[in-house]
Amino acid sequence: MAEKTLDDLFLDTLKDIYFAEKQILKALPKMARAAQSDEGKQAFLTHRDQTEGQIERLQQVFDILGKAARGKTCEAIQGILAEGDEIMEEYKGSVALDAGLISSAQAVEHYEIARYGTLKSWAGQLGLDEAVALIDANLQEELQTDELLTTLGEGLANPMGAKQ
Amino acid sequence: MAEKTLDDLFLDTLKDIYFAEKQILKALPKMARAAQSDEGKQAFLTHRDQTEGQIERLQQVFDILGKAARGKTCEAIQGILAEGDEIMEEYKGSVALDAGLISSAQAVEHYEIARYGTLKSWAGQLGLDEAVALIDANLQEELQTDELLTTLGEGLANPMGAKQ
Repeated sequence: MAEKTLDDLFLDTLKDIYFAEKQILKALPKMARAAQSDEGKQAFLTHRDQTEGQIERLQQVFDILGKAARGKTCEAIQGILAEGDEIMEEYKGSVALDAGLISSAQAVEHYEIARYGTLKSWAGQLGLDEAVALIDANLQEELQTDELLTTLGEGLANPMGAKQ
Repeated sequence: MAEKTLDDLFLDTLKDIYFAEKQILKALPKMARAAQSDEGKQAFLTHRDQTEGQIERLQQVFDILGKAARGKTCEAIQGILAEGDEIMEEYKGSVALDAGLISSAQAVEHYEIARYGTLKSWAGQLGLDEAVALIDANLQEELQTDELLTTLGEGLANPMGAKQ
């Protein structure tokens, strides 16, 4: 068996985030339905549409590598989304629900930011310039979404929970 | 049963990251042993020591709340660390091992950055100024560690995997 190289690691990690994005695509409409504020609902729906575009960009990266677009089970995203489900259940109907949903979404964003940051750096090291541009487009969207969620989270009033 | 508030969410999330930090404390020496480069080994060991200090700060936050320091199973960190173990196994002895280890460590850092960012914002909303300072100290260390890992990752030579 040939020694594994950065090419293998790049492909494995691409499969990991491809799987993750598809799970996120399924989770976002659930989060939008659960959200109490209109801004929260809208943020999740907008990001759902963005995620579709991100999946297409990942398919283009698979094409560049000459590989079939195939995901690989990503235990990290499964764990992150499972915690989000738990918050949706435990905080259902409470004043803290939206804060919890935004927090879960930011954990998802940061997972993606970590993976896209790594993939972009590796694509550069491997001389895959077109892949760098595609991955960077996804990375920038995740960074913007994370900032938007921070703003939304800070804007949430929480009159019943605040200790003054 | 009283309606859940942001206080509950803050405590639940504090328990989540407390559990996560303890798991990370156990994982870092394994990652240091696995790393091939001296810089990688040193980065993981330094962060292990930092993690001990971070756990102490979290215990101080529990004190501020008048609660016992207790973790709560964090499926997210379990998934992230499981992927790290997989990379250590699959890339053992290969030229790509350190790139994989750094990538795993950055996924861990980003999980912590997300959680500390959220907790800091909530502590501010709840008027817990001392907790804000303690959480921010952890957040700044995670941000610095993530930057250090990016620099290390970009500096890794990968002569066998590079497509020129």
